Amino acid sequence: MAIGDRILDLPAALAARLFEGESAAAAEAATGPVLNSFLALGTSSRQALRSRLSELLATGNPEQGRVETCLHDAANCALHLPAHIGDYTDFYVGIHHATNIGKQFRPDNPLLLNYKYVPIGYHGRASSIRPSGTPVRRPKGQVKPPDASTPSFRPSQRLDYELELGIWIGPGNVLGEPISASEAPEHVAGYCLLNDWSARDIQAWEYQPLGPFLSKNFGSTISAWIVTPEALAPFRIAQPPRPEGDPAPLPYLLDEADQREGGLDLELEVLLLTSGLRDKGLPPHRLALSNAKNMYWTVAQMVAHHTCNGCNLQPGDFLGTGTISGPDETSCGSLLEATLGGKNPIVLESGEERRYLEDGDEVILRARGYREGFAPIGFGECRAVILPSP
Amino acid sequence: MAIGDRILDLPAALAARLFEGESAAAAEAATGPVLNSFLALGTSSRQALRSRLSELLATGNPEQGRVETCLHDAANCALHLPAHIGDYTDFYVGIHHATNIGKQFRPDNPLLLNYKYVPIGYHGRASSIRPSGTPVRRPKGQVKPPDASTPSFRPSQRLDYELELGIWIGPGNVLGEPISASEAPEHVAGYCLLNDWSARDIQAWEYQPLGPFLSKNFGSTISAWIVTPEALAPFRIAQPPRPEGDPAPLPYLLDEADQREGGLDLELEVLLLTSGLRDKGLPPHRLALSNAKNMYWTVAQMVAHHTCNGCNLQPGDFLGTGTISGPDETSCGSLLEATLGGKNPIVLESGEERRYLEDGDEVILRARGYREGFAPIGFGECRAVILPSP
Repeated sequence: MAIGDRILDLPAALAARLFEGESAAAAEAATGPVLNSFLALGTSSRQALRSRLSELLATGNPEQGRVETCLHDAANCALHLPAHIGDYTDFYVGIHHATNIGKQFRPDNPLLLNYKYVPIGYHGRASSIRPSGTPVRRPKGQVKPPDASTPSFRPSQRLDYELELGIWIGPGNVLGEPISASEAPEHVAGYCLLNDWSARDIQAWEYQPLGPFLSKNFGSTISAWIVTPEALAPFRIAQPPRPEGDPAPLPYLLDEADQREGGLDLELEVLLLTSGLRDKGLPPHRLALSNAKNMYWTVAQMVAHHTCNGCNLQPGDFLGTGTISGPDETSCGSLLEATLGGKNPIVLESGEERRYLEDGDEVILRARGYREGFAPIGFGECRAVILPSP
Repeated sequence: MAIGDRILDLPAALAARLFEGESAAAAEAATGPVLNSFLALGTSSRQALRSRLSELLATGNPEQGRVETCLHDAANCALHLPAHIGDYTDFYVGIHHATNIGKQFRPDNPLLLNYKYVPIGYHGRASSIRPSGTPVRRPKGQVKPPDASTPSFRPSQRLDYELELGIWIGPGNVLGEPISASEAPEHVAGYCLLNDWSARDIQAWEYQPLGPFLSKNFGSTISAWIVTPEALAPFRIAQPPRPEGDPAPLPYLLDEADQREGGLDLELEVLLLTSGLRDKGLPPHRLALSNAKNMYWTVAQMVAHHTCNGCNLQPGDFLGTGTISGPDETSCGSLLEATLGGKNPIVLESGEERRYLEDGDEVILRARGYREGFAPIGFGECRAVILPSP
């Protein structure tokens, strides 16, 4: 558990008998090399552990001495993938992103007809998801520029990031038994940041008719901490109202509590660090500042839709929201949007220009919640540097 | 191991000390509840086990008495999913299928431009793959008939099967290190049958722009036996020549040995059993007879393409070929093709008609290899019955 710039070692705290009852059982489930058993527990056990941890970390707590022995400096710790990911599904709920992308193909009709009815999603690759800090190799692949008559095989020249939230699935469901929108929150065990790296030139050539494949599955980066739903409770908001004229969600996607508190008010930030900025001692360049409010569908709606056909979710399965862009050019969740498909380069404080990512570039995602009367929350960083193609 | 209508119990044979050296190590890897460790072994260990098993099962073998104690009647055994599936990828290499489907949307230009360059594939859902014999529930989902102005949520009325081969991945690769077409055979540990059930009405409404999702992930059925590449060696053929005018594969997809022996001559059959046929004591109706020769890309090309961007494959990962239809109406690998999108019903011997599958229908896939001088090979059955929506 992260506490400021230190980490509480749960197995050590368990061995030091700092937990009992339900909190001990929950801590026990969090002691293996992966947290799938912990994710499977559900809300009540997670809350028991959280509540006991608050006691233990409160100043003046009589067990402070024993707690101290279980704390490590975060700077000395390596963070790993928190769970074994069974299946990974990526959604497309950022409506500004979907609109921005659609405009590049269909200026007069950017959103397809199904978008406001269907929480669009597709299956991604679980095996290539890595924790923050793991470098990402520029992929090679088939690309066919518009002016070429045949494709060629070469390193991607249009490597991009995507700003997303990730969702860790909790208990899950049996094959054939859907999770309703009202039951969905019980099956969401946590949140993190997700950078769904995308090779736009490979994507453009491969994606018809079955969707993105090699343009996405060479690597995805996530922040390693699991931010629990309980920790996000202060930043819950009503799902922002749909624009005038939009259809209401179909009944299986509609839950009153979810409409009231299924939204999230979290600031989402993208930073870029290049060799030019590093050489000149300049700070990272802010590429975008967006907010989780820009999701057209809630997480509960994503879960209810995913399982409405009986598809089974399992503890440690992972969902991406899709790119969460905001409404203007300062809040684009990808370079494809920010540079209008590479047409308008971004000029950095170092004098460098970027249409897409270059080798050595590092992309950093951050999320923060603020609310008066509550401690602000961070997600930790989701960062990775681009290595050249082999 | 299947031998006629009996099954050799490998753990029992290992305990009876019927193996030693490399064959004992391979049998040991096959004794757990899942065969991932066995799949990870690679060709040499698999061959050692196969060779020792041939000795043990030969008539007149002096250890026949001990072997007998390790044999079970297959009729008394339940077959399970053979491995834990990490990631599942479905390809689209059946060119007649791709053409038949394309014709329904674009009569003059059925195949997209990328088809003859890119072994098209996409990620599927691993958690809902089940062994032969597990019933499949008709999914509910959003559908929008062409004459409706808005979608509705209801049980699929266009439930279909898809005739595919499945491929079990062996050792696999490290993230960032592609497998070449010439190395690919070492990473293919086995084959099976795959029925990629598809809800066509859900698919039509959801699949743009990111591909099929809920129309496919409610369930996939596979035959439980792993047919090893060694067992298929007699049925290897040269990859059928590409039609005049088709482009050559790009160099990363081209391997001389693969061109010479990367094809497979396997008969693929689809049978349908309905309540009407059952009631009248009639045999299953043959829906299609196709052949694995109808694959435009080889399995080695699928593996090389999948990893050319560095994407990592792991032991127990699973690939589907996509629907393997043949060139005419007797060899359609799906009802979408056979009935021209539901327009031309199939008339069964019972007098029943089928445009799509009805509750209680059972679909049975079979594969067989014949070659003079060799024992024919079967894959076991891949069968499942459709249950009504809950």
